[in-house]
Amino acid sequence: MPAGGGAARAEQIATLEGLAHERLVSPHIESLLNEWIDPSTGQAAEHWDEPSRSLLRETWRDFSRARKLPSDFVIRLSRECSLAQQAWVTARAESQFSKFLPSLRTILDLKCEETQYLGYRDSPYDALLDTYEPGATVGQLTPLFAQLRARLVPLLKRVQASKVRIDDTCLHHSFDHTKQIEFGRLVLVAMGYDFERGRLDLSAHPFTTSFHPTDVRVTTRVFEKDLPSCLFSCIHEGGHGLYDQGLDPRYYGSPLGESVSLGFHESQSRLWENCVGRSRAFWQCFYPILQHTFPQQLAGVPLDQFYAAINRVTPSLIRVEADELTYNLHIMLRVEIEQALIERRAHPEDLPSLWNDRMEAYLGITPAQDADGVLQDVHWSMGAFGYFPTYTLGNLYSVQFFEQAKLELPQLEEQIAAGQLVPLRHWLEQKIHRWGRMFTPDHLARRVTGNGVTPEPFLRYLEAKYGALYRL
Amino acid sequence: MPAGGGAARAEQIATLEGLAHERLVSPHIESLLNEWIDPSTGQAAEHWDEPSRSLLRETWRDFSRARKLPSDFVIRLSRECSLAQQAWVTARAESQFSKFLPSLRTILDLKCEETQYLGYRDSPYDALLDTYEPGATVGQLTPLFAQLRARLVPLLKRVQASKVRIDDTCLHHSFDHTKQIEFGRLVLVAMGYDFERGRLDLSAHPFTTSFHPTDVRVTTRVFEKDLPSCLFSCIHEGGHGLYDQGLDPRYYGSPLGESVSLGFHESQSRLWENCVGRSRAFWQCFYPILQHTFPQQLAGVPLDQFYAAINRVTPSLIRVEADELTYNLHIMLRVEIEQALIERRAHPEDLPSLWNDRMEAYLGITPAQDADGVLQDVHWSMGAFGYFPTYTLGNLYSVQFFEQAKLELPQLEEQIAAGQLVPLRHWLEQKIHRWGRMFTPDHLARRVTGNGVTPEPFLRYLEAKYGALYRL
Repeated sequence: MPAGGGAARAEQIATLEGLAHERLVSPHIESLLNEWIDPSTGQAAEHWDEPSRSLLRETWRDFSRARKLPSDFVIRLSRECSLAQQAWVTARAESQFSKFLPSLRTILDLKCEETQYLGYRDSPYDALLDTYEPGATVGQLTPLFAQLRARLVPLLKRVQASKVRIDDTCLHHSFDHTKQIEFGRLVLVAMGYDFERGRLDLSAHPFTTSFHPTDVRVTTRVFEKDLPSCLFSCIHEGGHGLYDQGLDPRYYGSPLGESVSLGFHESQSRLWENCVGRSRAFWQCFYPILQHTFPQQLAGVPLDQFYAAINRVTPSLIRVEADELTYNLHIMLRVEIEQALIERRAHPEDLPSLWNDRMEAYLGITPAQDADGVLQDVHWSMGAFGYFPTYTLGNLYSVQFFEQAKLELPQLEEQIAAGQLVPLRHWLEQKIHRWGRMFTPDHLARRVTGNGVTPEPFLRYLEAKYGALYRL
Repeated sequence: MPAGGGAARAEQIATLEGLAHERLVSPHIESLLNEWIDPSTGQAAEHWDEPSRSLLRETWRDFSRARKLPSDFVIRLSRECSLAQQAWVTARAESQFSKFLPSLRTILDLKCEETQYLGYRDSPYDALLDTYEPGATVGQLTPLFAQLRARLVPLLKRVQASKVRIDDTCLHHSFDHTKQIEFGRLVLVAMGYDFERGRLDLSAHPFTTSFHPTDVRVTTRVFEKDLPSCLFSCIHEGGHGLYDQGLDPRYYGSPLGESVSLGFHESQSRLWENCVGRSRAFWQCFYPILQHTFPQQLAGVPLDQFYAAINRVTPSLIRVEADELTYNLHIMLRVEIEQALIERRAHPEDLPSLWNDRMEAYLGITPAQDADGVLQDVHWSMGAFGYFPTYTLGNLYSVQFFEQAKLELPQLEEQIAAGQLVPLRHWLEQKIHRWGRMFTPDHLARRVTGNGVTPEPFLRYLEAKYGALYRL
């Protein structure tokens, strides 16, 4: 969009959001739902088959949440978020938090207003969490993050105290733009990402968007001197793309044709990016191909050295560049801050100092400028308070699912080492993707793994992986 | 879009078209219009001011046309056109007319059905013409095309018989991709195309799209060995872009915020592309810059030779590559064929031979394959029957408007020769762009030039220009 188009786009999006809201809460939909559902419980009668009961339950969820919001509020929120996003772009470019502060106040007030419409039992933050991760609450997340903090912070300290020094200069030579994309494409094909129903393009920030299971689009970005950026963006977004390609097309346009939660979506991208893409097994097959693609840069670098380099731990300022170990510390500080904002225990103007204090406490570093600190993420400008926890949930789920896959696919390690990734994709599709919102997130997690979300497998995985790499 | 996404997109577009149609013909809109307009005449009461009367007249036009079409027909037509477009892509790629024929039959049947809904006095083709060029009829176009044919075909013969041979090899050396785009951008800036409210990007086929006067986007394409392609695409689409940027933002979202007709829109692109961009005056200023950009290729080519090269006349197979003289012969054959199809005087299966016969008659050449003949344009697959005449109307209008501008801006030639293009843009904005649909196309043409559309100025312009170039 040209810079001058921002105000018009805000109106256009607000109009569309308003129309969609108006249709969802229309008397016609209400009378249909009242006919089929007991409005006091949100449950459909027993005589419906299971998919129909799920469809009605999830439609009722969407309807009853939407009905709590006045249409003019939906329009106002949409317009202000669109405008705030543009203010954030400018503020970040100039690293001027003060330029974002007025928009942030507006958005925060609107989100607090939204929690009042939506209602909550314990914390107003719960009302927002539920938007992205149905069923998630502060009561559930607080002990979960406490467990992570209790073991990640000491683990990081041990890694930093280790005598092992990992050299990753091999990843920062000059790598041809086109060859980087070609290699990313090759990995996507191996993962079973269907290019007949999908694309790979370039963008400033990698993302996945989907219009239908037959039209899924992932993007990556390429830096000449940063091999991991394009590579792991392709794998990460490919994991999202496989979820969207794996949704059941028969349910397209209904809740059953949508992903069950953002935590589940992130679990798919992180499973492929980390459990697969940063594993030794994966590179047994793919490293020789990568060396063949970049012989000058990598021919003399042994597999072990490459594997260590892509798993090097180093506290850094930017979330999207963080390693597996420090990543959740980045999330934790955001969650603590946004929860305090929504509970009105913190003030927007104090954000830079709140941010910097926590960076120091968790990661031992402080950003020199707000562009590398509190202004780095787009989420708050979009009104996406309550979104960040889903990244951590995704990380925890990813290890839970991968461990379950290893149990059910005894040959999985050997298959990955042989570049055969399709059996894993197939397992994920059968166990997770095709169900859409048929089950609630917690129910689906229990169906797949026997448990709800839990940090233990993730922490064990990190402790084992980095214990070995850093000889702890 | 990935290839597999076609069917889903057809449903999505059909759904949106259906919803938009449903809203436009809703009882709410009808009762409002009935309150403000005399439905027997479509006129608003005298007490409204002029913009309001125009707004009501044009809203009534859109409403009453839409109301004649059943919603399920709108949805069916939209879906089939979306699918047919994809069939056309394949058929053209393989140059297999037979692969497009079934879709063409479907679309033709639907368009004939549409003419019955819309109604017409003389020819069913009138009903479709009016979609793109309000007020245009076969009765008006037939003598107009006859005049063009009567003078263009002999003019082409004289050009071909001329002893002057124009050499355009200077345009087909190797030209750097980035520098071509940079030069196109430079010309757009000089034209007054506002990059704060506009973009320039690349696409397979150049086009202009607009979401608001503050968000207008033009595209071009670049061929290393074809300098005119990127250059004149930029200027042509820039002409469209200036129209869209010049619409009055106060009327956005209403008929008064829309262009008055496709013929007028094309007049803007052709005025800039041909009357300005292929004129000697324009290159007096811009040729030295172009030479400076491509010194190796152009330093030794005098301005006169370059000017002749970009105006070389040669009968060719592809419309979008045609010179100014032969362009309307391409249009003429399409208009004759599509009118015969809609009047059921011709059959879809005979299209390739109808096409090739006329190419031979008007241009003296015959395509070796249907991809370069009857399959070259997307329009019929999109259901856009009645669209082609607007290209010719645009050419005629472009010269009428440019001659009027020269009368009203006595310094225009000198300004163009000095690279000062903004006075012309300003004149077009004041005379045409900002009015949107305030007046009917014919009324607006008369306001600007004192006349409705007429081929005489265009023919005189061509005869003078090519008479001089080819020393006829």
